[in-house]
Amino acid sequence: MQRFVFFGGKGGVGKTTISSAYAHKCATAGLDTLLVSTDPAHSTADVFDQRFDDDPQRVDGYDSLWVMEIDPEREVSEHLMEVKRALGDQVSPSIVNEIDRQVELAHQTPGAHEAALFDRFIEVMRDSEEYDRVVFDTSPTGGTLRLLSLPQYLEGWIDRLLSKREKSVDLYEKAAIGDMEPRRSAVGDPIIARLRERKENFEFAGETLRERSQFFLVLNPDELSLRETERAIESYDERDLPVGGLVMNRLTPEPDPEEDGRGARFLRQRVETEREHLQRVEREFTPPLVAAIETRIAEVRGELLAEVAEELDVSI
Amino acid sequence: MQRFVFFGGKGGVGKTTISSAYAHKCATAGLDTLLVSTDPAHSTADVFDQRFDDDPQRVDGYDSLWVMEIDPEREVSEHLMEVKRALGDQVSPSIVNEIDRQVELAHQTPGAHEAALFDRFIEVMRDSEEYDRVVFDTSPTGGTLRLLSLPQYLEGWIDRLLSKREKSVDLYEKAAIGDMEPRRSAVGDPIIARLRERKENFEFAGETLRERSQFFLVLNPDELSLRETERAIESYDERDLPVGGLVMNRLTPEPDPEEDGRGARFLRQRVETEREHLQRVEREFTPPLVAAIETRIAEVRGELLAEVAEELDVSI
Repeated sequence: MQRFVFFGGKGGVGKTTISSAYAHKCATAGLDTLLVSTDPAHSTADVFDQRFDDDPQRVDGYDSLWVMEIDPEREVSEHLMEVKRALGDQVSPSIVNEIDRQVELAHQTPGAHEAALFDRFIEVMRDSEEYDRVVFDTSPTGGTLRLLSLPQYLEGWIDRLLSKREKSVDLYEKAAIGDMEPRRSAVGDPIIARLRERKENFEFAGETLRERSQFFLVLNPDELSLRETERAIESYDERDLPVGGLVMNRLTPEPDPEEDGRGARFLRQRVETEREHLQRVEREFTPPLVAAIETRIAEVRGELLAEVAEELDVSI
Repeated sequence: MQRFVFFGGKGGVGKTTISSAYAHKCATAGLDTLLVSTDPAHSTADVFDQRFDDDPQRVDGYDSLWVMEIDPEREVSEHLMEVKRALGDQVSPSIVNEIDRQVELAHQTPGAHEAALFDRFIEVMRDSEEYDRVVFDTSPTGGTLRLLSLPQYLEGWIDRLLSKREKSVDLYEKAAIGDMEPRRSAVGDPIIARLRERKENFEFAGETLRERSQFFLVLNPDELSLRETERAIESYDERDLPVGGLVMNRLTPEPDPEEDGRGARFLRQRVETEREHLQRVEREFTPPLVAAIETRIAEVRGELLAEVAEELDVSI
């Protein structure tokens, strides 16, 4: 298995449970494992009955399992401050206010969460060499896929900006217009340096995602979830990202054979419909089905987590 | 009730069922009712067992119910062609290719679907004066709320563009630069005309949504759905959009009292958890709970649709 393992899928399908179970599996097999949770509801805290934050913390009762929780809201505001500071250093004071307004507006757009989170993911991927396995329960916003294509999009864009910026520095040097000093060469230019850094960052991310990562998609046995998963598989394929398998979660449990009544009829009907969906996944979807997991009555934690981990037919 | 009624909520909560039931209720009470469906799965076709398209069609078996289905994909490509055509008329031939590329790129962004759909919604709101009631099963993409704030955002932006454009036309007239003719006054200018039209369009939408519309939110009895609904209510409030009530959908049915076994235990546990969620909604959420609807074994259509309509405590 690759070092970085992502569990994707729409909000509510059970990504946190499945990725916690997989992290449990890796850790109990002796691998130093980091679970990175981005769920704003902080449900890893429920799974392991322990509070986590932005710094990896060892989980009680495990020798080699660590958890960190990334809060997307906090990432966005820190990202905002960092961008403002970086731009403030580079532009003339007269337009700082206008730029601050533009940057604030940009951070209110729907993509801002994903952009900030992705920056954080890249940091984690860079700084986690001491772990054998890093497991992400990807953001439930559904924008994750778009994010993953950022490197390709941005590389061309940054290249164009870079060449424009280099031309304009060149012009400044030749003309030495106004009070601009000729020392503004491309080498020491702070804007070019920053663009290069961003580009390099995204190149690293693209390579790491394509070559050192594996993606699993979690889904539920209903029409909508199948449709969304189909679309997700296409997007991963388009971006050459390896989808290792599908995890069907939240299957309705069957009633006992002797049960009879309104409840049992309801459940049997459900189980029947869900079985059709499951068969369609096995028949029509390219990535293999690596687990089909029944809904538990109790919350998945402790003993149950080990049980779910057992059901995951995923190598560690 | 207002003329325009929207049923919002995340994908999969059952908006199409609920809005079909509400449309049924209005139509059987004698109101000329148009149901506008945007679900890419075309589930109104399932509900009424009839095919629909972009033009309102009367539903078999009803005197005063019409359905139209809007396909977001088709709207995006038509919107794309229309924007290209309009821009092509207005710019010099040398940059048409570059502009086409930019417009295509813009239409691949996540907001493009919502933008195109919203344009279509405005058209429907303008052209539906012959109906007493127009019911929307809003798009399941979750971007609908962002869309609804477009008028406010865009008005300021268009105003600024308008004033810049007017200044530049003014300059052209004074200078009569190159081969530009002074006839390019602000009055006959096609770009200014188009911007004014867009602005007027969005003003109409904003007014109609605030003053002649009512919004209902459909949710399911789980933690994630409650959290998303809480956030949605806030966004509606921020934009002065009237949330008329909440519809709790997909409640698990209780087993018969004498049932006992694995299935019955599972269902009772579920019902208990869902009851807690329902109580939290009644206690903590500001808009009233106007219906709490149990999951049906069969698909909701025909007789069942009338039954669900009965359960909606919403005036017509």
